Amino acid sequence: MNLLERNDTNAVAHLRMNAPERLNALSEEMLTALQAELDALKEDRSIRAVVLSGAGKAFCAGHDLKQMTAGRQAEDGGKAYFNDLFAQCARMMLSIRALPQPVIAAPHGIATAAGCQLVATCDMAIAQSGTRFGVNGVNIGLFCSTPMVALSRNIGRKHAFEMLTTGSFIEAERAAELGLINHVSEDAVADALALAETVASKLAAAVKIGKEGFYKQAEMSLEEAYAYTGAAMAENMLFRDTEEGISAFLEKRTPTWEQ
Amino acid sequence: MNLLERNDTNAVAHLRMNAPERLNALSEEMLTALQAELDALKEDRSIRAVVLSGAGKAFCAGHDLKQMTAGRQAEDGGKAYFNDLFAQCARMMLSIRALPQPVIAAPHGIATAAGCQLVATCDMAIAQSGTRFGVNGVNIGLFCSTPMVALSRNIGRKHAFEMLTTGSFIEAERAAELGLINHVSEDAVADALALAETVASKLAAAVKIGKEGFYKQAEMSLEEAYAYTGAAMAENMLFRDTEEGISAFLEKRTPTWEQ
Amino acid sequence: MNLLERNDTNAVAHLRMNAPERLNALSEEMLTALQAELDALKEDRSIRAVVLSGAGKAFCAGHDLKQMTAGRQAEDGGKAYFNDLFAQCARMMLSIRALPQPVIAAPHGIATAAGCQLVATCDMAIAQSGTRFGVNGVNIGLFCSTPMVALSRNIGRKHAFEMLTTGSFIEAERAAELGLINHVSEDAVADALALAETVASKLAAAVKIGKEGFYKQAEMSLEEAYAYTGAAMAENMLFRDTEEGISAFLEKRTPTWEQ
Repeated sequence: MNLLERNDTNAVAHLRMNAPERLNALSEEMLTALQAELDALKEDRSIRAVVLSGAGKAFCAGHDLKQMTAGRQAEDGGKAYFNDLFAQCARMMLSIRALPQPVIAAPHGIATAAGCQLVATCDMAIAQSGTRFGVNGVNIGLFCSTPMVALSRNIGRKHAFEMLTTGSFIEAERAAELGLINHVSEDAVADALALAETVASKLAAAVKIGKEGFYKQAEMSLEEAYAYTGAAMAENMLFRDTEEGISAFLEKRTPTWEQ
Repeated sequence: MNLLERNDTNAVAHLRMNAPERLNALSEEMLTALQAELDALKEDRSIRAVVLSGAGKAFCAGHDLKQMTAGRQAEDGGKAYFNDLFAQCARMMLSIRALPQPVIAAPHGIATAAGCQLVATCDMAIAQSGTRFGVNGVNIGLFCSTPMVALSRNIGRKHAFEMLTTGSFIEAERAAELGLINHVSEDAVADALALAETVASKLAAAVKIGKEGFYKQAEMSLEEAYAYTGAAMAENMLFRDTEEGISAFLEKRTPTWEQ
Repeated sequence: MNLLERNDTNAVAHLRMNAPERLNALSEEMLTALQAELDALKEDRSIRAVVLSGAGKAFCAGHDLKQMTAGRQAEDGGKAYFNDLFAQCARMMLSIRALPQPVIAAPHGIATAAGCQLVATCDMAIAQSGTRFGVNGVNIGLFCSTPMVALSRNIGRKHAFEMLTTGSFIEAERAAELGLINHVSEDAVADALALAETVASKLAAAVKIGKEGFYKQAEMSLEEAYAYTGAAMAENMLFRDTEEGISAFLEKRTPTWEQ
């Protein structure tokens, strides 16, 4: 049994975290498995969209607290270990952002702490009806500082602050209202796979330019952002498949893409 | 028949894009006409607010794909032409932001790609009930990279990403929920003109300071933003009309402004 | 009668602005009183959360216009005075952000101009049902430039621009929808105190790390934010109380904190 299952259908890769007895905690091993698949997908031109879900009762309950506690046995009380662990986790989160293919989270059950961060980090998210989200580390004295980075780039400040300092949970419908997820679904994995198929049907080279630009321009001034994206659009116009896409549109026919 | 009609009523200028047969596409000529009016309005102290609408079935369907396709005939396959075109378009969008007077979009029908960008770029927007918004270039292989700059500064990340990578449309009510527009209306042009009249009734010098500061401080750190806006308010306090406005308020009478 | 009342209950400090005849205007004296309490609270380890409310009919109606008008008598027409006043006000607002303890606003009646800024500046806000919010300085010719800094970091651009340039008010329910406040309540002070108690029950050292990081990382790039917060979490893990919190969680018992 793999810690992380991967099933490809057409151009969509479905990653499923598979440590249900630990609520798919982001243990070192799980982080390593996710990193390995992300590194492989980065180079895989046959895959155009990715869905991320979890087996068992929960999507992901955050870091593996037992493993972290064991890390305290080191001479420095775990300091080096914890620094490495959070760096490893951040690297994995940044790899989702850096992946050319869009990544869609399909959470169910609970998505807490780094599990909530994972949802916030994915480009899109469709949650199973009934999913509960929290950044509740504060309840055990560990503020969700890294989850906050992703969460606060998805939802408004007042609501993010409340979740972080009270440890309270929000329901899927509320998460959709606040912008943490795109939609609530009665079958989140199926709907996430369908959304992935839709994205995969687009020109992969255009989506790649788009996703990269999406996060880059968000950190630029307006002028810089236009200079950067204007150049990206001019480059995009020169793709042979884009020429065909525009010609097909003008001629009211279906494009024939080489992609 | 002008490509861009302008009608002034009191201190409000109403610009109406008038190429209905092309769904008011942002052709080179339309961009030039918009730029010319924005340049003129910038110096026009008699105008205090601007409304932007479109004639025919749609507000604006984005760039002119026929014209862009013709641009491919150049020796470089259109590279220089496309770079110039997107730079020209970005310059026009930045001119809306730089205009001292607030600009209110009044979209109807459809507002897609650079047409959706135009709505996102305007300071405020009132949409006709039934208007549909999309950044659907991805459907023809051309990712809406420049529209993304304006869109992602108006609505949340998850929703912006979905619109950009699926090409799906949202209805006016949903656009209002997400923050792309201010209101939905049964008569968008009339309501936008009324909103423009309200803004035009304020002290123009104060609104000018405010609009300029609004976008500048958004890109500053909190400390920088307070240093900048504190100085702006002190300057504003020294306007003779502001002194009169405050005196009138304290004396419970209507101010007599020289503006 | 104090201009600013302070009542401590357990680890919660309740500050109540008490100049009802002036609608709790942010006069020099009120700013000085708020600054003094914030400076004192910053060093007060016995207090873990703060509630800010107002006596009388309104939470706060912004700056004291009578006092400001008197400031015009100076030789420079008030220029130095106004610069000092807005700097003093910004310093107080920044002190709320810099305070280690979360601050919860409990507005009622009206919260306008710098009073609305105060609500936007607090980390969280619970408004009395019926509270109306506005940044309406534009109505008297004084654009709410400094309130805009806080407001535009809470709500979407289109809505913030409309409030600022029209001077129109929004109701509490709308403020909650837009993200200016967390919740509407039939007893805002009681609910804000209860929320403060909840926050105060958490590990203070963790909340302190969290609040400081919340605003710092918001102004960083994603990579910088992860480097910063990763180090913060590793540090947090080394707190003795956090070790106890995690152990208690794993052993399904209540933690015994020294805090």
